[in-house]
Amino acid sequence: MDKPLSSQSADEAGANLKPVNIGICGLGTVGRGTFEVLRRNAQVVAARARLSLQVTHVGTRREHAGLDLGASRVSRDIFEVARDPGVDILVELIGGTTVARELIEQAIRAGKHVVTANKALIAEFGNELFALADAHGVEVRFEAAVAGGIPIIKALREGLAGNRIEWLAGIINGTGNYILTEMRDRGREFSEALAEAQTLGYAEADPTFDIEGIDAAHKLVILAALAFGIPLQFEAVYTEGITHLKTQDVEYARELGYIIKHLGIAKQNGAGVELRVHPTLIPDHRLLADVDGVQNAILVEGNAVGPTLYYGAGAGAEPTASAVVADLVDLARDMRAGRACRVPALGFAPECVRSLPIVPMEQVITPWYLRMEVEDRTGVLSTVASLFSERGISIEALIQKAPAPGETRVQLIVLTNPALQGSVDSAVAALGALDAIHGTITRIRVEALDG
Amino acid sequence: MDKPLSSQSADEAGANLKPVNIGICGLGTVGRGTFEVLRRNAQVVAARARLSLQVTHVGTRREHAGLDLGASRVSRDIFEVARDPGVDILVELIGGTTVARELIEQAIRAGKHVVTANKALIAEFGNELFALADAHGVEVRFEAAVAGGIPIIKALREGLAGNRIEWLAGIINGTGNYILTEMRDRGREFSEALAEAQTLGYAEADPTFDIEGIDAAHKLVILAALAFGIPLQFEAVYTEGITHLKTQDVEYARELGYIIKHLGIAKQNGAGVELRVHPTLIPDHRLLADVDGVQNAILVEGNAVGPTLYYGAGAGAEPTASAVVADLVDLARDMRAGRACRVPALGFAPECVRSLPIVPMEQVITPWYLRMEVEDRTGVLSTVASLFSERGISIEALIQKAPAPGETRVQLIVLTNPALQGSVDSAVAALGALDAIHGTITRIRVEALDG
Repeated sequence: MDKPLSSQSADEAGANLKPVNIGICGLGTVGRGTFEVLRRNAQVVAARARLSLQVTHVGTRREHAGLDLGASRVSRDIFEVARDPGVDILVELIGGTTVARELIEQAIRAGKHVVTANKALIAEFGNELFALADAHGVEVRFEAAVAGGIPIIKALREGLAGNRIEWLAGIINGTGNYILTEMRDRGREFSEALAEAQTLGYAEADPTFDIEGIDAAHKLVILAALAFGIPLQFEAVYTEGITHLKTQDVEYARELGYIIKHLGIAKQNGAGVELRVHPTLIPDHRLLADVDGVQNAILVEGNAVGPTLYYGAGAGAEPTASAVVADLVDLARDMRAGRACRVPALGFAPECVRSLPIVPMEQVITPWYLRMEVEDRTGVLSTVASLFSERGISIEALIQKAPAPGETRVQLIVLTNPALQGSVDSAVAALGALDAIHGTITRIRVEALDG
Repeated sequence: MDKPLSSQSADEAGANLKPVNIGICGLGTVGRGTFEVLRRNAQVVAARARLSLQVTHVGTRREHAGLDLGASRVSRDIFEVARDPGVDILVELIGGTTVARELIEQAIRAGKHVVTANKALIAEFGNELFALADAHGVEVRFEAAVAGGIPIIKALREGLAGNRIEWLAGIINGTGNYILTEMRDRGREFSEALAEAQTLGYAEADPTFDIEGIDAAHKLVILAALAFGIPLQFEAVYTEGITHLKTQDVEYARELGYIIKHLGIAKQNGAGVELRVHPTLIPDHRLLADVDGVQNAILVEGNAVGPTLYYGAGAGAEPTASAVVADLVDLARDMRAGRACRVPALGFAPECVRSLPIVPMEQVITPWYLRMEVEDRTGVLSTVASLFSERGISIEALIQKAPAPGETRVQLIVLTNPALQGSVDSAVAALGALDAIHGTITRIRVEALDG
């Protein structure tokens, strides 16, 4: 093993080292936040990186009114930044998966490191981008792509490196969590809470990515790849949104001691890997149950450390910028030491990244919450119960609400013990065929989150 | 800026690289845990480090019955490990600040990196050890010294590197938190809860370090140095234990919407740095209030990211080993890249670490909870209230408990708004001189933890 150089000689050299030149592409919320954080925290960042970080080139297709870009060169053609030989690190903050991908590829080919907050791009094209970066001896860093300012990528790649990660479960979409929190705390229906989130700027005009779970799926794929050493595989995620959730279910869940959260869950077990995003009942005494509003949190179960949890702002200009700047400092520290790529992109040596079978949803085992409208008459409950027991599903609780005056139908809530989804599918189909059951049967998975 | 080497050539070289040889000194709980985690997770650790990590030498002064040390050399003289030219990294797990210090110094002088879980040693002699390591071009890593398996050192040194850290507050002693949780949830008195903690192995036979806050002070000093870029200064911490807490106060706090936690708090503001360990009332809706039993959690406020929280097991064989192995993987990644010391020990360049004034406790501003036994007669309340207002202390709540039948004394609870401790000291002295007030006045600080 080579002995490291003396750090004293490195410090002497450090005084003469050039600053790290940064090119930022995209001056939206996060781009402006990054510019501002680098400006405001320049001193503390330089003290930590032991190099000065300066933004020398900004690529923006729009006007940048109200922002003093100082001595930075400004290009309307963002590809000028990738071509600029003076830029050491290109920060991609334009979003999307077409132009952004081309921009990053050009930067890599030009020998530049890349920092990006683009979860969709990493989730969908990360494998190719990392291979290209490896071939060019540069890094693509993406701490800002998952859970904003929470350093969860670093925790998985480095902080928990001594563990086999068994599973992780995260509240990784702030918009969805805000809506669910409003539904629970103020009894609002989904559409009402969504409209409020839009008014407050927590949800986009087109909220599809957030409320249908696509954004969470992008992030989950990245977390799972880092946790298990598997390739990024966006298409493999089971994705269920929150649009069908009723305040009624949020209420009933609470009566049973559960909170409904929209979780991204990745598990590895003997059968392979589970990758799923869906509403989930979790026990109300778990820490994740107390993560409210637009906040994010990820619970990670390692086989040595046990459960650890990481909490913070999952979005917003400066929280996301915090993650971008952390990546910049990391790269500056590598560059100062004269050597990048010390940690592989997914935390595992590329030759050790291997595909594991994805567990089909029918084979996933969880407890279930089911709600159905049934005729309030003798024998219905036993019919329902026997449909479950015939399929080997044991029932933990079966609660029939008192009928409203004059009503002949009541709400029946069933909480099962852990059961194969395939068996529950079959039970629900059989229930749906009963005369005594009306309308759709609501079904939500339950997770104990206890190891 | 030098271009990094191609990682391809590094990978080719990697195949021929020697394994990293580790010497472990101390085979107590954490030593055995580290040995076991390295053995059980060898494959995943090697895939992440891109080098094999092998324990080649174990130094233990006692028998190691029941532990298969494989091919490791075993020395009863632990200094043999520091002298072994084949050892790349020495892991110090013997504890204490005398032999451990000498051992680490010898290892550093022999050109070895050091990994330690020894919070007392780092808090009290870290400045000297880091300087010695710098002079020899090696690293002293100490992730395991604070909050067990939670990667909080890495978060502060790297993950939050883009932030000026404003403050942090942590539950960093599991024993104390277990006792407080038992007092709250089961109404046990302190001594009873302590005895139970001892039976369960959560507290030592001599629990002084835990219950008097010394262990927490060691950890706080390390966190503060990393957060603010100040030298380690154990002697500067104000340290107050939990031995004087009464179940009654835990109950009254809860009625007022607060939970009592034993916190380590570090803040920087215009006046300097506050470093304090003491029981604290925190609002019951804060996430820290839900951290129960032997768990640890640290809340960190960065000026870009806002609040982030890190939660997990703060002690125990394998959680602590998880942190030790993370440091080993980090060092292996550095060694593979041919260069160590990329991140300074305290996260800041040594030449940027500077002393800041420590704020004297009399000048610390917090709200206060006070409880006193007063005569149940007209005029007492207004006398008490005027003693506070004369000193510029405004009262948020003043609650007089109904007297027990036949009693002439009642419990009076005062919750103040933020006030200078010096003013509160003066008010308490004046209160103590009143005829109408009996016995000791209980006083506990309050923290809103809201930025």
